[in-house]
Amino acid sequence: MRENRPYVSITTDFGAAYTGICAGVVARIAPHAQVQVLSDEVSKYAIVEGAALLVQALPYLPVGVHVAIVDPGVGTPRHPIVIRTGRGDLLVGPDNGLLVPAAEVLGGIAEARVLSDPGLRLPATSSTFHGRDIFSPAAGHLANGVAPRAFGEEVVPLPLDLPEPVAGDGEVTATVLYADDFGSLILGAHPADLGDGTRFEVLGVPLPLAPTFGAVPVGDPLLFTDSSGRLALGINQGNASDRFGLRAGQTVTVRIV
Amino acid sequence: MRENRPYVSITTDFGAAYTGICAGVVARIAPHAQVQVLSDEVSKYAIVEGAALLVQALPYLPVGVHVAIVDPGVGTPRHPIVIRTGRGDLLVGPDNGLLVPAAEVLGGIAEARVLSDPGLRLPATSSTFHGRDIFSPAAGHLANGVAPRAFGEEVVPLPLDLPEPVAGDGEVTATVLYADDFGSLILGAHPADLGDGTRFEVLGVPLPLAPTFGAVPVGDPLLFTDSSGRLALGINQGNASDRFGLRAGQTVTVRIV
Amino acid sequence: MRENRPYVSITTDFGAAYTGICAGVVARIAPHAQVQVLSDEVSKYAIVEGAALLVQALPYLPVGVHVAIVDPGVGTPRHPIVIRTGRGDLLVGPDNGLLVPAAEVLGGIAEARVLSDPGLRLPATSSTFHGRDIFSPAAGHLANGVAPRAFGEEVVPLPLDLPEPVAGDGEVTATVLYADDFGSLILGAHPADLGDGTRFEVLGVPLPLAPTFGAVPVGDPLLFTDSSGRLALGINQGNASDRFGLRAGQTVTVRIV
Repeated sequence: MRENRPYVSITTDFGAAYTGICAGVVARIAPHAQVQVLSDEVSKYAIVEGAALLVQALPYLPVGVHVAIVDPGVGTPRHPIVIRTGRGDLLVGPDNGLLVPAAEVLGGIAEARVLSDPGLRLPATSSTFHGRDIFSPAAGHLANGVAPRAFGEEVVPLPLDLPEPVAGDGEVTATVLYADDFGSLILGAHPADLGDGTRFEVLGVPLPLAPTFGAVPVGDPLLFTDSSGRLALGINQGNASDRFGLRAGQTVTVRIV
Repeated sequence: MRENRPYVSITTDFGAAYTGICAGVVARIAPHAQVQVLSDEVSKYAIVEGAALLVQALPYLPVGVHVAIVDPGVGTPRHPIVIRTGRGDLLVGPDNGLLVPAAEVLGGIAEARVLSDPGLRLPATSSTFHGRDIFSPAAGHLANGVAPRAFGEEVVPLPLDLPEPVAGDGEVTATVLYADDFGSLILGAHPADLGDGTRFEVLGVPLPLAPTFGAVPVGDPLLFTDSSGRLALGINQGNASDRFGLRAGQTVTVRIV
Repeated sequence: MRENRPYVSITTDFGAAYTGICAGVVARIAPHAQVQVLSDEVSKYAIVEGAALLVQALPYLPVGVHVAIVDPGVGTPRHPIVIRTGRGDLLVGPDNGLLVPAAEVLGGIAEARVLSDPGLRLPATSSTFHGRDIFSPAAGHLANGVAPRAFGEEVVPLPLDLPEPVAGDGEVTATVLYADDFGSLILGAHPADLGDGTRFEVLGVPLPLAPTFGAVPVGDPLLFTDSSGRLALGINQGNASDRFGLRAGQTVTVRIV
């Protein structure tokens, strides 16, 4: 990490206000850190979407402390954890699978600890806002150089199994991992899963696998390789989620015609 | 305040673009300040929501300059002001009550001044965007060390009277202060207002006073203590504002059964 | 530019997540830069809105590197460019007109270059996310002091012709450039285009040209001078876009009665 100005990113499903409180807690504990909100717009409770965003984003961000909070189980016995990655990042968040896929693309899990030391939390810990009371203070202390081992016992983080594509007779069925802000549907599949096909159909609509949106007319659908390398379904200057009526967690079948 | 890197937070009902302009104005005047948007998503014109957010957030943020703008009266004779708090913060915003509850939880009002010196505003002041022309420049100059007394005359800020709960026969009626980004309804009441009750009803729906969302099944309602200590009405992984059809300013009666 | 802490602003139609990735890419390449999101909420594909925001905002921001990405043609042959302005700013974005009106208010185009050097892009360039792969790396390198001429050939940026008002017999027809976050409609016209009129009608509704929202009762419409100097149509504490059913690109006729 950058010694003089440690970098802290924050990713939540909180919206602006609660995320801003988290950023403020980090800034108060670690006044020299550069604190950046990666996203406060993860869909509510959408662990898979949050995990996919971290996988896509963190390799491009500075090595640093990355707090991520999509935590439907706040206040239940699930652990708050920190993961040290092979690249040297420190990932902070709930032990619900959210952090694990990103850790894997950042060189793997080198160390993982439970955030149990009360001296490294805020003095009073609520049961509904661990982002403020546990995760952000941990991020601040980590940015200040406190080692993960100071926080608590070692732990094996729970995995997150992203849905795999299912190949059928001339078709591939994939799960929608999430819809991005443009309404493009990011699928739990990769372009290679389509084999040698060159013409495709989704819900009866023919569409190409194209290199970019501008390769089809405005308003037309396309399959494309998302910037994270996944197969995605989009519409040039349109919203595929609305057009196809598909949301995160639903499946979509791509026919190879 | 931190001398080498003063901290400035910004809270508005502006959305991103106008808030970004404010942040840029602060950065231009105070290049060494750390500028953080606390929230650009306060509901439009919702002074009570903005005030409640400041009460909840500012005690957790660094001592610094905190600009808050929810200002339906922009361009009318209401004063722009700065309040110095007992903790040492400098709160900047319109004199419409927005800043006062936060000042009270930050050690009280030590000094309050009207922002009248034209030399501490932008050279041309519009009648519709005081955030850019008056409040953000004031924040920048305060972050640079200009004293509140340099800005203008002393003033007694207008108070903001948050609605109080009304106790009835086996029930408590409270006002919805605001719905947070999850749709949880933060009420103008505290859990103690429910007395010794252990079973409750809201609009005919039985629900517990529970320590956290995960204490009830997904989709079930609960009363809980918000992270700011207020009584709140939520749904585990759901949106209470939509479910109960309740918005800021409406009242809700909690029956003790 | 500020030598010790160069300033980088980012403006997109991406929403939070993809914009956060861009900010992270800048921070990774230019660890000493101050990176601020001006807006991640430009309406999707709305080049005119983005250009108008830059015109309104950049004169108030620090002289610096300003990345702006509203890029429906991503992946097509349109160039990525950098413009050096007379004021000394470096504007980075697609060559689709987005940057040009802002360059004009910042002292004009002093130099413009294509961002073609692959050594100043990320090693692997996708066809769908030039914000991450081309524009943000360019911004980081420019903040580090790399000169525009290092990026590629000189280019004459494509202009953006904002719609002009059309004067008729006792009326002015203007195009809605965009609706701001309050629903106020910013028009492609200036108050002077209304001549000496003092009473006006829009869609049969009488309304004044007023100095500020508070000059009319809550809920009443008004014409006003936007903080950027343009003619605008708003409602005191209301949403003119919804009330009048008007969106960006549509025309509105102001009758002078």
